Formats: sequence, C-alpha cells, structure tokens
Amino acid sequence: MVFHVGQPVAIVVARSVREAELAASAIRVEYEVLPAVFDPVEAMDHPSIHIFGEDNVCSHWQQKKGDVERGFADADVIVEGEYRTRAQEHSYIEPQGCIAVPLGFDEMTVYGSMQCPFYVKRAVSEILGYPMSGVTVIQTTTGGAFGGKEDQPSQIAGLAALGAHLTKRPVKYLLSREEDIETTSKRHPAIVRAKTGATADGLLTAVKVDIILNTGAFSTLGPAVLYRSALHAAGPYRVHNVNVQAHAVTTNLVPFGAFRGFGSPQVLFACEEQIDRIAEKLNMDPVEFRERNLIREGDVTTFGQRVDHSVGMMETLKRAKERSGWTTKWKPAPNISLVIEGSRKGSHLWRGIGASTIFYGVGLSSSGEQESRTGAYVQLESDGSVTFAVGTTEIGQGMMTVLSQIVAAELGVDYERVRMAPVDTSRVPDSGPTVASRSTTFSGRALQDACKKLRSLMFEKVAPRIGSAASELKIEGKFIVCSKDNEGKIPVADAIKIMHEERGQVSAVGWDVAPPKFYDNEIGQGKPYVTYAWCTNIVEVEVDVETGTTEIKDVWAAHDVGKAINPQTVEGQIEGGSLQGLGFGRYEEIVFSPDGGVLSNNLSTYVIPTTLDAPNIYPIIVESPWEEGPYGAKGFGEQPLMGIAPAVTNAIYNAIGVRLNEVPATPKRVWKEIQGKMRGSSP
Amino acid sequence: MVFHVGQPVAIVVARSVREAELAASAIRVEYEVLPAVFDPVEAMDHPSIHIFGEDNVCSHWQQKKGDVERGFADADVIVEGEYRTRAQEHSYIEPQGCIAVPLGFDEMTVYGSMQCPFYVKRAVSEILGYPMSGVTVIQTTTGGAFGGKEDQPSQIAGLAALGAHLTKRPVKYLLSREEDIETTSKRHPAIVRAKTGATADGLLTAVKVDIILNTGAFSTLGPAVLYRSALHAAGPYRVHNVNVQAHAVTTNLVPFGAFRGFGSPQVLFACEEQIDRIAEKLNMDPVEFRERNLIREGDVTTFGQRVDHSVGMMETLKRAKERSGWTTKWKPAPNISLVIEGSRKGSHLWRGIGASTIFYGVGLSSSGEQESRTGAYVQLESDGSVTFAVGTTEIGQGMMTVLSQIVAAELGVDYERVRMAPVDTSRVPDSGPTVASRSTTFSGRALQDACKKLRSLMFEKVAPRIGSAASELKIEGKFIVCSKDNEGKIPVADAIKIMHEERGQVSAVGWDVAPPKFYDNEIGQGKPYVTYAWCTNIVEVEVDVETGTTEIKDVWAAHDVGKAINPQTVEGQIEGGSLQGLGFGRYEEIVFSPDGGVLSNNLSTYVIPTTLDAPNIYPIIVESPWEEGPYGAKGFGEQPLMGIAPAVTNAIYNAIGVRLNEVPATPKRVWKEIQGKMRGSSP
Repeated sequence: MVFHVGQPVAIVVARSVREAELAASAIRVEYEVLPAVFDPVEAMDHPSIHIFGEDNVCSHWQQKKGDVERGFADADVIVEGEYRTRAQEHSYIEPQGCIAVPLGFDEMTVYGSMQCPFYVKRAVSEILGYPMSGVTVIQTTTGGAFGGKEDQPSQIAGLAALGAHLTKRPVKYLLSREEDIETTSKRHPAIVRAKTGATADGLLTAVKVDIILNTGAFSTLGPAVLYRSALHAAGPYRVHNVNVQAHAVTTNLVPFGAFRGFGSPQVLFACEEQIDRIAEKLNMDPVEFRERNLIREGDVTTFGQRVDHSVGMMETLKRAKERSGWTTKWKPAPNISLVIEGSRKGSHLWRGIGASTIFYGVGLSSSGEQESRTGAYVQLESDGSVTFAVGTTEIGQGMMTVLSQIVAAELGVDYERVRMAPVDTSRVPDSGPTVASRSTTFSGRALQDACKKLRSLMFEKVAPRIGSAASELKIEGKFIVCSKDNEGKIPVADAIKIMHEERGQVSAVGWDVAPPKFYDNEIGQGKPYVTYAWCTNIVEVEVDVETGTTEIKDVWAAHDVGKAINPQTVEGQIEGGSLQGLGFGRYEEIVFSPDGGVLSNNLSTYVIPTTLDAPNIYPIIVESPWEEGPYGAKGFGEQPLMGIAPAVTNAIYNAIGVRLNEVPATPKRVWKEIQGKMRGSSP
Repeated sequence: MVFHVGQPVAIVVARSVREAELAASAIRVEYEVLPAVFDPVEAMDHPSIHIFGEDNVCSHWQQKKGDVERGFADADVIVEGEYRTRAQEHSYIEPQGCIAVPLGFDEMTVYGSMQCPFYVKRAVSEILGYPMSGVTVIQTTTGGAFGGKEDQPSQIAGLAALGAHLTKRPVKYLLSREEDIETTSKRHPAIVRAKTGATADGLLTAVKVDIILNTGAFSTLGPAVLYRSALHAAGPYRVHNVNVQAHAVTTNLVPFGAFRGFGSPQVLFACEEQIDRIAEKLNMDPVEFRERNLIREGDVTTFGQRVDHSVGMMETLKRAKERSGWTTKWKPAPNISLVIEGSRKGSHLWRGIGASTIFYGVGLSSSGEQESRTGAYVQLESDGSVTFAVGTTEIGQGMMTVLSQIVAAELGVDYERVRMAPVDTSRVPDSGPTVASRSTTFSGRALQDACKKLRSLMFEKVAPRIGSAASELKIEGKFIVCSKDNEGKIPVADAIKIMHEERGQVSAVGWDVAPPKFYDNEIGQGKPYVTYAWCTNIVEVEVDVETGTTEIKDVWAAHDVGKAINPQTVEGQIEGGSLQGLGFGRYEEIVFSPDGGVLSNNLSTYVIPTTLDAPNIYPIIVESPWEEGPYGAKGFGEQPLMGIAPAVTNAIYNAIGVRLNEVPATPKRVWKEIQGKMRGSSP
C-alpha cells in the first residue's frame, strides 16, 4: 500500500545510472487511487481514512501545571491566537547517499553522509539478518544534516545494502536533489492554538497551548519531535498554570521528521507571538514584559523542573538589549494607515525591532534515555601526538574541533597534534545519535573519562622520576607537576615518550552515561532534560509597505552556552543557525500539489537565504557554566535557529503594525496582511 | 650515489600509468660506473670498495660456550664443511603496492599490502614530518608476505606518500612483478663454514660455525636476521662447547632482508648436513644420533638458556619417525658407482630418506625487545556479537581465524559472531610487526587481557541476577555460572544484552608486554627468546641418477606448537611452509647478471614449486603447552619452512650417496655432484 506521493515501491540495481534509469522506466505500477487527507485537523476526525489507528493520532504528550482556568480567571488580559508554520527542507549540501560494500556472506560495510551511524548499523543488521558485528558503518564527510540525516540514511543504506546483499557487489545509491526533496523527511508543519493570560502589572497567570504536528504518512520521529514541541511550548517563563496538549497526526503527505530545533521552532513562534501581543495589550515594552516573567536561577519550569544552576536567561536578554540599542530603538508599533500615509510622503521602507526569548533542553530528553550514552577511544602516539575516536559525527557543527580541544586540554598536548579518526561503528560502542546538540557535551564527557585513565597511566610512569606519588601529580599546561608544590615539571610530551619506551599501555576507552532524566506524561511534569541553554534574539527589519518585502537588517543573538570551548565555532553556529532561522521565518516553504506531492522540489523553486540575504548577525556569548558539562559547556547547536522567526514577525509588527499568524513571512503573506488590515481599518 | 642495480633514483607522479612511463622514459641518468663487489668474502677484505664502514661488515653476533678447541680435542670424529645457500624471492601473490591519500595539510592515510602497518606509519611520519597522529595506515587484503612485506612497504609507502604530499592528490604506487623481484629484498645468500665433533658413542662435543650473510647494498634488516642466524646455528642439541661467529656483509647487490625463517634456514641447512655427516662417519642411523643429542626438558641450549618447559623436541622426532616408517626405510647410502650400475640394470630412479631436527625461537628476540608489545580492542555488540581489533596483520597465516576463536572462547560467544576490524594504526597502539610467528601468541594475549576486563564488567552487571558476588562468576561454555556451585546459569548473549540495556560500558582495550628476554653478545650467552617451537622433518625422495632430477615424494612434518588452537590452520601452515621450504631446498634461486642485476625477474624465469610439484605432506601436531601462551599456544608459522632443505639433501644422499654443499638441489647441481663423485671414484 502506498501512503504518499514519492514512497519507494521498487529498487533497481544496475551497472550504471543510465541502465538503472532505463530499467526503472520500464516498471509500470498500476495504482488504485484511494481518497487521501492532507490536513491534520481533518485527519483527526476523518470518518474513513485511517492511516494510523482510529484517529490518525500517533502520539500525544502534555504539560499540566496548576489550574489553567483559574489562571485565566485571575488574568486581567488574555490573548488568543492560532499559528501555523510550514514544512521546511534541510537543504544540506549533498543529497542523501551511501555506498554499501558486501564482504563475505554476512558482512557489510556502509559508507555515507549521515548523522547517526549506529542507527544505520542497526537498520542494516535488521534488514539483512546479519550480526551487528558484521555491519560496519563509516560516516563520510557530511556537508550539513540538520536532522535530515538522522533517521533517513537508515532507509537509504538499507536499500543500498539490500542491493549489495542480493548482487554481491558494492552498490551506490545517491538521490538527486529532486528525489531528495520529494521523498525525504522535512520539518513538521504545525498548527498551534495558544491562549495566554496576564495580570495588569505584567505577570503571566496562565498559558494554554494546543499543538498539532502533521507528521505525514509515517510517524518516524514524529513522537520524539512532538515531545520537544510539548516541552518547549510554554517558553522559558514563570507561569503557575499551564496546560499543553500536543498531538502528532498522520496524513498522506511525505513523512516529516527531525530538523534543527526538533519541534520547538513551531511552538516558540506561537509562544513568542503571544508574549508580544499580551505585552502590547498591557501597553508594555515587550522586553520589559519578558524581564518580569523570565525564569531565573532557582525557579521551576512550566513542566516542574527546578533550574538552580546555569540559568543565563536574563543575562542573554540584558546583553542583547544593550548591544542592539533596544531601549532607544523600540517604540510602539504604528497604525497601518499612518504607515501607508508615510509611504505616500516618500518613505515606503519602515523599520521595526522585535525580540524573542527562548530556551532549549540540552541533549536527548527522557524519551531518549536509552540512547543517552557515549563512548570514546584515545591513543597516545610515540611522538606525543594523540589520536581519538568517538561515536558522534562531525556534520559541520565543529564537533571535531571542539573535541580535539578537549583532548588537548585534558592531556596537556598541543591542539595541532590531536586528530580524530573517522567515525566508524567498529571503533567505539553505540554512542547514540548526533542530535539534540549533544555531541560536544556527551562525547566530551566520554573523552574526559578516557583521558583521565591515560593521565593515571602517565602519572604512574613518571611518578618515580618526579619523586612524588602518582596520585599527587596533575597536568598544568603542557607539564606534569606535583600538585603539592608545583615542582618537578616533566613535559607531557616527554612523559608520553617514556610510556612508549617503557612499553606501557597507551590507549584507553572512555564511557559516559548522561545524568538521569524522567517525565511523567500522565501528570504532565518531570525533569525531561539534564540542563538548558537560553537565548535572546533581537531582530531589526525594514519593511517595504508597498510590496510586503522585508529586509532583515540586523540580528543580535545572545546565547548562554555554559562555556564556549571554541568561541569561533560557537559564533559560527550562531550565524548559521540564525540564517537558517531566517529561512524558516522569512523565506522557506515547501509547496504541495493537490495530490500531496512536493512541487518545490529543487533549489530554484524552494528558496533558501543565501549569503546575499544574510543580515548583520551579532553573536553574543553568555557563559553560565553547567558543572557536569566539559568545562561547563552545554550543547546549544539547535538553539540559534529556534527563536528567529518570532523575533522577525515581532519586528515586522513593530515596523508596520501588522501581525502575522503564519510563517514564513514571505512578501506575499505580508502584503496580504497589510491589505487585510487596510480593509479592516478603512471605513 | 647508487649502490646497486635497481636502486630508485627518481619518482614520477602522473595521471596515468602510461603518462608516468612516458615521463620516466624521458629521464636520462648519467652514471659514472664505479667498481663493485658482489661476493661477501671479497667484500670483507676489499681494499677499496667500502659500502659500509671499513670492512663492509654491518653487524656481528656470536655464541660462545665452553671451550670449543677442547671440545674438538675430546672428539673421536670431526666433520667440516662449507655450505652455501642462495637468494630466495618471496613470490607473494600481489607485488608491493599502496595508495596514499592526503587529507588536509599534514594528514595522510595509506592503504596497502603489508605486514607491519606501524613501521609504515613511522616511516611516512618521518619522511613527511607529519605528527604520528596525522598518519593512518590501513592494511588491505594481503596475499602472502613471508617477510617480504616487513620493511619494504615503508619504502613503497614513503614514496607514494611523498608524491601525494607534493601533488595534494591520492597517489597509487604498484610495482610490476619484474620491478618487485629486481628491486625489493630477498632471503640473504649465506656462506656457512661448520666444524662438528663427536665421541665414538655418538655424543656431540663441539660445534664451531662461521656465518657470512650477504646483506646487499643496505643493511636494512640484516643485523636482525643475522641475530637469528647466530642463535639457531648450533641447532637444538646438547653441546657444551660452541663457538658461532656471524657477520653480515654489504655488497653491491639488491638489499636482502626478512624471509620466513629469518636467517635460520641458511644455518640449519649447514647444521643438519653436519649432523648427518657425523652420524655417517660413526656408522650410525642419523635419527639415532639425533636421539642421543637432542635437547630435553631441563636442558640448556647452546646459548645458555635453560628450557624447563614446553620442550616437545623428542616427541616430534618420535612421531615423525613412526609415521614415516623410518626404521624400516632407512639404510646406509649406496656407493655412487653401484647406483649407476643399478641404473644401467633398468632402474634409474633411486629412493632415499632424510631427516632434520630443528627449533625456532618464538616471537621477537631480545634485539626486538622494544617492539615486543601488543594492543587489542574488543567491543560487545547489542545482539551479543563481538567486534575486535588488533595491531598485527592477517597475511594468509590464519591469524584472523585463530584470534576470533580466542575471543569467542574468552567471552563465551559463538565464533561465527566474532569479527575482526580491518587493521588500522588508529584503532590500537603500536603493536610491533607481524613477524617472528608472534601474532597468535601475543595479539592473543592482548585480546585475553581485553576480554578479562569485559568479563568483569559483564559479571558485575549480572551478579545481582545470579545472586552471587561478581568475583565468584565464571564463563562456562556459552553461560555465566557461579564457580562455587555451577548454578545460576545466564546465557552470555543475554548478559551482553543486559549490559547494553543498562547502558554499561561494553568496550575495553587490552595490552600485553612479552616476557623479558636478554642476550649478552660479549659473552655470547643469554635468554634471547621467550620460548621455543620444535620440529622434525623427514623427507623421502626419488632421484633420477641419469638426469639429477629429484622428485620429493613424501614429507612428514612434526611440529610442537604448544597448542593447536585451530588444527586446520596449523596444518595449513605446515603444508604451505613445507612447500616453500622445498622451494628453498630444491627449486628456487635468484640469478644475478655480472653487474649484479637480477636476471630471473619473473615467475617464468624464477621457478617456484606449484601444486603439481607438491609431495604428500603429512602434518603431525605435537602439543607441549607453553603456560604463558594463549591456551598454551606458541608461534611456529616460520618453522615449517626451516628444516626442509637439509632433510631433502640428506634424503638425496641417502638415495644416491652424493653430498650437496649448496641448495637449491636443482637437477643441474645434483648432476654436477654425481659427475664429480663418479670422476672422483673412477680410476
């Protein structure tokens, strides 16, 4: 049974692409066309189309705190809204692809562009019935992934491996850009209904959110994505009465799945629009409103987790506010008629400024507890250089650089002499996926564990030379010294040479299990993440009121990352994520045909922001250390994308007084809203 | 300066082989021809040609025990001889070759056919000035090596890496068979002068040996090979007066180096010829003579090492003697005149039987002490299968099979579910070379170390379930049981699944340092090897006295291997080694031109025995366990080759009464000796 346009129905393996295309074109599939449903709201009540269970709902998560009705009763002002976000394509550099090489009768090595080699290993092992030790997966250079190469490569590799198994030849399977956009997962389109109440003096009293994620024809990662939607829906605020209901609904569209932010950009758009609107209703500066409500150290989140450390939320707001000149720039939004009037007077370009304050649960949630472990391997070379291996992947986020720094620091060797081995499932045990901004933090912890063992081995070897007990030694810069008196310096490079000369053990494995997490979905409360990153975005835009075109001028992006082990890669993450967030908020939208097929199937019809569209992005690094992270670092790689969209729409409102209930804020959509508002306000 | 014909003088890197050949042919080298020396005896005294130092002697090793002159004075009979052996080519399946792939500005990955990836890693690092962590060497499937891919690939890879470094492109460098035979190392030709004395009742009193190895234009592994020549020269006998002087001498031939047996086949040919001759002089059955003199448990070797365990020498002789029917077959050699007479009577094919008894120092000698360590990595997979990695290589000897068996046995998992990862220098630390029959024993020990750690982790996880202390648990077959009462069985496969489910550490490194060894070359005594393998070869031949052609009919090869972990691969080693030993003793000879170039440069002019030349080979496995080896196993992979040549020449003598002082025993050489003997015996 075929559930969506683009679903694979057969594979053809041939000696050349041309042969394969010819053979594939000879396949005739006769379809009996059945009725289909594309809208998740329709799907939830559909009398006859059942894609998943009775109601097409494949997952439900909730937050419940206090009494939300009483909260609204206590409120002096209430705002309500319904928000929609669209499917976003990952637009990684190279499309999905892999090469499967069979060896012997039950061994297969797969090379490919991917985030999660251990997922691929499990999939290939299961599909072919090979032992896990017979399947080796090696990640090749991956030009971005953004969630699009989380679970999808398991399918790609599974098909290639099946072909290789049957033909006993290496099989290469590479999607064209069109095939990739048409058939692989994208960001879930969402419908979010939100109701927010606050007192006259600007304190939130209640938040109610209903979330519907359209997860397409197969649930895939829908339930996991929905979890994060549900947990981030009420934002980083102190609210005592909360009710969030989240549902993932199957439809006859291409499956939707993981994408940087993982279900949170959709809900944060709604959340931060609501905050802006309620502040306006109270005639308050929206940043001042946030200052009154944002979480501080010792507060409890809307889902019941006390955050008593590493809470840089307010600091990000303070820094972004200062750097952006918010106080002098912000003034209440104009009336649209005046805008048009002004435009007629000669200036059709109006400026506005908008903000958003968001948070991010670092690492895998409690629903991914089983995957929350990481391995590492570290080997000291005879010339004092170091080789290491981890199970998480470098996908452009800079993990390799940061982990190399960690190893260098832990062992006291030069960064330039530390090298990461290719990611290969036979080098370290299953270390879970490279998702949820977990690589630096958790592979970092595993590396620290391995390095600690090597330090002990090193100290044992040199202790007699220094004349101290091994337990008294420590690494200080590039030297081993006695921690009692800082005496007896031996260069680490010499110590490593001694270890080799004396034939000591020079390798170690590291292992880390993330701190425990839990979430009780029945009561809607728990401790779903180990810690949180925090962020304030402030965006300045210029809107052309005659065309609806918006030009993003400046983005101030303040992020509490715990500790920036490499400030340059942190800034790179902020810049890249902000631009991808602009894609989500301002540019990108997958367009579907009436039969549910993807129309915008390449990069000339699916428009992403280019360097020419890039605004000035000002990264602001806030460091509120998380004790359990390496040097205090918290993962944050997804966060830069997450809060951009509402900052943009809030800035558009601030510029021209027009609210958007849907992103991306394309010129067409903005223009339509301007026209609507004009009609509404004209007599 | 060019020292030998075939020495590389330039490298050409091009986009195709054809381009490279054209470019190379455009290079004109103008040589000033200098005088050359090819004979090592001439080279030692040469007044003007100095290839190495003043006397061209690049290495000297000795054995000294007792008073050899007094030993000869005590002797009733003395025999003396001068023996010569020729250069032997390894004739591995694929010629030398590798691919060097540059990554970044100081990273290089080398793939190639080789024995010793860590040697290649060091060479490439040194040549390019890259950190050791920047150089990764991965062994590709290697179709035999036999010592020919011990040090040579360092040069091959060094040149390829240099090309890759300069061009910033991957460079493939593959020798043709002709280039390979002409330019790479071979077995050292040797000249051995031996003098042996014995009492009238058949006890050895003194052995004096002078060895000259021709090591060619560069010493390379000459000194290491010479060490083994020196230590094996007096054979596995009880002799109290010994003097062995060994010299490696440089000449203007292609460099000679490592080859299965590593300098011992040359000296064992001489040793076992001497034993046969002295037995004859005493009118004794040569096997009976050996029985009187061979080392037994508790005896001391000629170099002063007491062997008080794992001495299966006599057992190999007993078993080979029985299986071959020696007692009924052996009779004193005929007089050559009678032979010819017999031939004229109709039978020109005469049969004879010969024996040799030899020993082999297992693993690296004390001169390789620094290299005597091995690493391992073992990873338990979620389905109970196991992946492991070691630093020694599979080169056709069956190491992968045997090590997989060790891992399976140590952990209690199915052999079929254990897989070895490709050998890659970034997976385990420098584990020394794959030489000296050390892989099974020493990588086996490192794997045992890693498996022991994993067993502890496993026992800790399941102890609460069994209701015993972890320290009381053990593996029994495929189960974990309490060692007290053999109760509480939990399948190992379940235990591994539990480890994964509970996110326990599932990988470990292993490390092994070989037991200590030493040798004092000043006094010529020591403990040069950790233990010894022992072997008796008995060979039956048929000699055509009209042509000098010999046909090897049967080979009985009894080897004390400590423990045959895999009897089939042990038999395979015995069969392959015996045939290669026949190559050395009967067929193979590199022919040099007058200017020192190799004339027999391909497999139609350099003749090796094929399957059609293979005699019946009867492997006989003797197991005298070495406590420190895995399950008692001792390395022995080289031994099957080592004693074949003298067994063949002794059998030829037994058939036709003609002694050979030189191998291979080609028809031409045998015929020449027959003619000489005839001339000598005719009036």
